[in-house]
Amino acid sequence: MAQTKTEPVAERPANLTQFEFLALNSALNLADGHARQHLTPGQVRIVDELPALWAESVKSPVEEVEDAAHRAFLELLGQHGYRTLAGQVLSCYSSSVAMEILARSLVTVSDSILLLHPTFDNIPDILSGVGLRLVPLEETRLHEADLDPAVLRSVGCVFVTTPNNPTGRVLPPDRLRALAAQCAETDTVLALDTSFRGFEPASHYDHYAILDESGCRWVVIEDTGKLWPTLELKVGWLISAPNVGLPLADIHSDILLGVSPLVLSMIRRFAEDAAGGGLAELHRFIAANRRTLQEGLAGVPGVAFPYPGSRTSVELVDVGDRPALEVWSALRQRNVFTLPCQQFHWATPVEGEHRLRLALARPPAAIAAGTKALRHVLLGD
Amino acid sequence: MAQTKTEPVAERPANLTQFEFLALNSALNLADGHARQHLTPGQVRIVDELPALWAESVKSPVEEVEDAAHRAFLELLGQHGYRTLAGQVLSCYSSSVAMEILARSLVTVSDSILLLHPTFDNIPDILSGVGLRLVPLEETRLHEADLDPAVLRSVGCVFVTTPNNPTGRVLPPDRLRALAAQCAETDTVLALDTSFRGFEPASHYDHYAILDESGCRWVVIEDTGKLWPTLELKVGWLISAPNVGLPLADIHSDILLGVSPLVLSMIRRFAEDAAGGGLAELHRFIAANRRTLQEGLAGVPGVAFPYPGSRTSVELVDVGDRPALEVWSALRQRNVFTLPCQQFHWATPVEGEHRLRLALARPPAAIAAGTKALRHVLLGD
Repeated sequence: MAQTKTEPVAERPANLTQFEFLALNSALNLADGHARQHLTPGQVRIVDELPALWAESVKSPVEEVEDAAHRAFLELLGQHGYRTLAGQVLSCYSSSVAMEILARSLVTVSDSILLLHPTFDNIPDILSGVGLRLVPLEETRLHEADLDPAVLRSVGCVFVTTPNNPTGRVLPPDRLRALAAQCAETDTVLALDTSFRGFEPASHYDHYAILDESGCRWVVIEDTGKLWPTLELKVGWLISAPNVGLPLADIHSDILLGVSPLVLSMIRRFAEDAAGGGLAELHRFIAANRRTLQEGLAGVPGVAFPYPGSRTSVELVDVGDRPALEVWSALRQRNVFTLPCQQFHWATPVEGEHRLRLALARPPAAIAAGTKALRHVLLGD
Repeated sequence: MAQTKTEPVAERPANLTQFEFLALNSALNLADGHARQHLTPGQVRIVDELPALWAESVKSPVEEVEDAAHRAFLELLGQHGYRTLAGQVLSCYSSSVAMEILARSLVTVSDSILLLHPTFDNIPDILSGVGLRLVPLEETRLHEADLDPAVLRSVGCVFVTTPNNPTGRVLPPDRLRALAAQCAETDTVLALDTSFRGFEPASHYDHYAILDESGCRWVVIEDTGKLWPTLELKVGWLISAPNVGLPLADIHSDILLGVSPLVLSMIRRFAEDAAGGGLAELHRFIAANRRTLQEGLAGVPGVAFPYPGSRTSVELVDVGDRPALEVWSALRQRNVFTLPCQQFHWATPVEGEHRLRLALARPPAAIAAGTKALRHVLLGD
């Protein structure tokens, strides 16, 4: 690995993002879940249009640019119901900034939150960082049956990532409907993080219609940042019910006046390109990378894919008896960067001890090379 | 004013940013301190280069893109000393995100902060929002003499905006040196927000050399977002002493992995253009707009400019006996948007009751039209 003088993390990173940071300057970065594949020809044309989009953004009222962007993005993903929600779409620099605003809002009215387990560790870290007590909600439990109303009543909010990162599991419509009804009944805020939904058609049903109908107090964090290789130009949208009862708009206005109209215009164009065939092409691309990984590890003793049906841009690999951190370390020596999974299991890290997460939104050659290196390491070549 | 369906604020905004939000879709928006003048020919050429900068950013290691950007920006503004500070530059989406990270870090080690008064209200709002108790530090007091060591010892941090927003007052080198020495002596973190320094040559002396020499625990928030009309594409840098003793890097990594390399590359190019004459041209441009405003209000009874020597991109106007909110409201009826100043005076709002802030980083025609409208309103035409 290239030594970086700005590396702010110790040898053993404190969180998953610091693991990802180590990988940033490597060609074989399979660590973070950001999109780093090559642009498609259609997307290259959009990048070539940036100077024209700049000129257009300067001339247009901000609210028009903003409306056009969230309409194009959300309707691409089947979220037609959001349109009825006047005044409830707050644009943020990223989904994590939206998360920070949500966390700071929640802590003004509550001291605890029921949080999906496992999930990406910056979510529990932000929530506990503002002072909320975290109560784990096991993913299997969430999918099995209704939650305990007493538990729901004991917290201010239940937070679900769907599709989940890293498992890819989607909350289906009937479970969302039941959970929303329970939240309405117990007056608990229902918060969804749908950052990875672009990859997963099973999550393209209209969440907003179901949430609205339930009457519960809901918040959704949408993210344009995982889907397209837009060099970190992205938006996180913090969308909420009129009755949510949280100071989201006030805290949002403490942190920003607005996001870039150029980024909004660019996202609109990427969404239009996706609607015209780009999204299906992206799904095929990720599926091919997933096949490369799964086939490349076929026959390696102890290897398993615990969520083989996932369609998101990350894949979990059980690496057998060896600690994942040891495998991560051996891969790092070959300049291949992945994520060991202990910290996804924020309440019981031991559950992730033999698991790696690999990013699939990468050039196919990087996936092939990373897979080959992982096979070698696991076979002890 | 165009009615906006997404307007999240009540008739009487809760904070200055919500006042600014009201103005966003107006052609005569003199409210926010963001740069909204036209691009210069040199800057238009940089925007035309964006597709090429994108291609270059994809190929370059992130740390190189990042280093080149902060080097170009900070050295343009005389901040050569920052270079010796390996590992202490954290890139954020904006200065307010840097502020949020600083606030969240401070509250882990302290419960109170000594904060400049007046200053832009999102600073006190973010600091109190995370639970810090605010102790006002009057600007006149700061410039007069050393602070009371007992007061410094009673807080975890002293926070100074320099040049200040809205007054434009700069902490001169001798005062910075004395304050840093006091902070070293009392083990108080010294935090500076220098977001407006690009406009003010008096603040281009090397702050980092002085801070480093003092041995105090310091933090500086730098902002590329006020200077150039880059459509909100910007970076806030959170820079700190190696001995700062705050979990800045950990909280930063909870919120982001990194900012856009395209934005960083673009900022480098804007800084290069500024170094080649663009900055001097910008200073002349702001000075001309300031003259338009001051001359346009000449002879209006009761009008005064309390900080006529300010060179930042905002100007304060004392409007005489009428409440500024009434003048603001009359201007709004003419589609001219400004900022009433009560909320800058976060500890004693009454001090800002007869004062408006007008933005100067606007096309000259907007300044002329806004000035004319203000003259009419004040003369009761």
